[in-house]
Amino acid sequence: MTRPETLSPSPGRPPADSASPAGGEPQAPRGGPPAFSTEDHRWMRRALRVAEQALFVSSPNPRVGCVLVRDGRWLAEGSTQRAGGRHAEAQALHEAALQGVDVRGATAYVTLEPCSHTGRTPPCADALVAAGVARVVVGLRDPNPKVAGGGIERLRAAGIQVDVGLFAEDVLAQNPGFCARMTRGTPWLWLKSAASFDGRMALPDGRSQWITGDAARDDGHRWRARACMVLTGIGTILSDDPMLDVRAVETPRQPIRAVLDTQFVLGEQARIINGDPVWIFTARPDAGKAARLAARNVRVIVLPPDERGALSLAALMRWLGDHEINEVHVEAGARLQGALVQAGLVDEWVAYLAPSVLGDGQGLAALPTPLAGLDQAYRYEFQDVLQLGRDMRLRLRDPAHWDALVEACGLKKG
Amino acid sequence: MTRPETLSPSPGRPPADSASPAGGEPQAPRGGPPAFSTEDHRWMRRALRVAEQALFVSSPNPRVGCVLVRDGRWLAEGSTQRAGGRHAEAQALHEAALQGVDVRGATAYVTLEPCSHTGRTPPCADALVAAGVARVVVGLRDPNPKVAGGGIERLRAAGIQVDVGLFAEDVLAQNPGFCARMTRGTPWLWLKSAASFDGRMALPDGRSQWITGDAARDDGHRWRARACMVLTGIGTILSDDPMLDVRAVETPRQPIRAVLDTQFVLGEQARIINGDPVWIFTARPDAGKAARLAARNVRVIVLPPDERGALSLAALMRWLGDHEINEVHVEAGARLQGALVQAGLVDEWVAYLAPSVLGDGQGLAALPTPLAGLDQAYRYEFQDVLQLGRDMRLRLRDPAHWDALVEACGLKKG
Repeated sequence: MTRPETLSPSPGRPPADSASPAGGEPQAPRGGPPAFSTEDHRWMRRALRVAEQALFVSSPNPRVGCVLVRDGRWLAEGSTQRAGGRHAEAQALHEAALQGVDVRGATAYVTLEPCSHTGRTPPCADALVAAGVARVVVGLRDPNPKVAGGGIERLRAAGIQVDVGLFAEDVLAQNPGFCARMTRGTPWLWLKSAASFDGRMALPDGRSQWITGDAARDDGHRWRARACMVLTGIGTILSDDPMLDVRAVETPRQPIRAVLDTQFVLGEQARIINGDPVWIFTARPDAGKAARLAARNVRVIVLPPDERGALSLAALMRWLGDHEINEVHVEAGARLQGALVQAGLVDEWVAYLAPSVLGDGQGLAALPTPLAGLDQAYRYEFQDVLQLGRDMRLRLRDPAHWDALVEACGLKKG
Repeated sequence: MTRPETLSPSPGRPPADSASPAGGEPQAPRGGPPAFSTEDHRWMRRALRVAEQALFVSSPNPRVGCVLVRDGRWLAEGSTQRAGGRHAEAQALHEAALQGVDVRGATAYVTLEPCSHTGRTPPCADALVAAGVARVVVGLRDPNPKVAGGGIERLRAAGIQVDVGLFAEDVLAQNPGFCARMTRGTPWLWLKSAASFDGRMALPDGRSQWITGDAARDDGHRWRARACMVLTGIGTILSDDPMLDVRAVETPRQPIRAVLDTQFVLGEQARIINGDPVWIFTARPDAGKAARLAARNVRVIVLPPDERGALSLAALMRWLGDHEINEVHVEAGARLQGALVQAGLVDEWVAYLAPSVLGDGQGLAALPTPLAGLDQAYRYEFQDVLQLGRDMRLRLRDPAHWDALVEACGLKKG
């Protein structure tokens, strides 16, 4: 766990002048649990649902929901708009104003600490103060160590009661990428795989269309849509020539598509080059080819090779963290997946399993170094299971990565 | 689907003199659903739960539950005892008598049609008549085509009201092996596998202890306990030298352990030879070795080889059906599992998945003939998912096999 000096702040949640470190103030006062009522729980749950509306929208800003309530009555609500647009609190205040609703004396339920700094939009803490709300309930303190507490301090300085820490871990789970980038400087990365239940992503000759069904494919596009970036390897481009855009679900924003191409062998007719942004990560510079591709909205990023001559995956992750990539959705072959597993860079798996048996074929992960024993296995934890048509979706998470993120966000004692 | 002439009747549910074919009488009268009340549903659900007590017990007899009720009050209940002991109806009547409860005028809820023939025990239909019950509600008609309806006819002839078909498919699901043997002449077979979630049962060198945890292992022993036979291949014996008995759970009855050993290379020091019954299926006779093993409770069965020189799996299944094996639990390596898959003999999978990645290693199924295309994949249906400790258990079923069984039991129109 590192908090690099080069940490790039989110434009929506920039550093405050007066910083207090994340976790510096306990979420719950010593001596007892926070005094959250049943009503508080009810409205924060709603704010979490409202934040879901920003799932495909707000990147690189976090997904935030805000609900305004007075005397037990709902007044207005809002979620984070597209980058450069209103944050959740401003959106809720805007909605209230549109309806002619006076919010003085109200309680604002906000899933993430309101910002206190003028970025592309004015500070939400000031907007809440100006609107005359009496109390703000905050789910999660802003995990950016340069920010944390600034918004809360500004509200309290204005005489507003601020209670922090309701459903904080749920807010974190809604924003793992933003929180990871703010605390460890790298994105949150998941592998999306589709395989038979005997663990085969393709036949030995590479054929893989289609192992899972429509419902799983659509769900996979929802995962693409929530990510900032969809990453694949050059092997998948050469064998499947995929577009990797979001098609099966509506989205106001396409993730950036990226290819790991150490030797820069990408064919310039690849379907992924369709005019929308594509990033190519390579270890082999080729200025002419890069210039030709740049004219077609393809950005070529040269990264240093690691000791084995392969592109350094750790350097890639740091680079992405420095460039506002919160969440990386990987759809790749067994080689890249195995390399990411072995490098310890897989935070989650979104694994679709078809109820079929293929026998021989491409596995889920070709590890660069075979395991020396079963005690060396890469271990995750099952998070949930969902039936999608005839298929199953298993979600797994690296428990150490999650625990570190929880701790870095000040939710557990270090 | 065949109903072989050589069908061996269950000792507990033998052929009746007057036979009516399974499915000859619809479960629901034409023109409307059966007139089952809420009370009926309640008590038949209880009878199904009572039948669960016979899960590890009654083989090769079916698992049956009986509940005696009068005026909405529970009087007594019973489940099938060990082979040669009381059937469910007799056990319930016995329990009532022990408690001095008069059951005249009662309704008997019986999951499977009462028997009408004297086998090792007197006919249950006669016992119900003698006890003076007024009504019998039957879940599933006896699927044995030589029996079906005989018990019901005897009850009706005695003036007892008999209503048939309540939770019939649940009764079938409780007794897939008995019903399969009675209708198609072969056992119901499931593969039990334990693998990493990338589908590896072992490292490339064969090490497999332990990929899944204690809870999954214990659950696996429950599946062994319910089977009539635990079957493995000689490869597993040579590499792991397992006992294959039921240890992790209490059981009054051990399944027969069996080894598929085409070349009869089993070492006479194998741990599986422990004095309890073991069956060896081979294509290579060796009378001397067989005689030595017979003294140690090992029975050697010589079956014809198939056209490839391997032991005929179809012949094996017929032989098992002829020898009162209802349910076969397979714990084997990828070769035998793949051969069973390709032969179309896998009715179910009980697949434990650990939340780990092994990369390279032994898959779940090495098919003798690789797939020519994805449309050739062997397809199952997910039945349910259960978390067991850190692991998941996925149950899958061959939908065509299940549908055929349902139809053969007269539950759907052919």
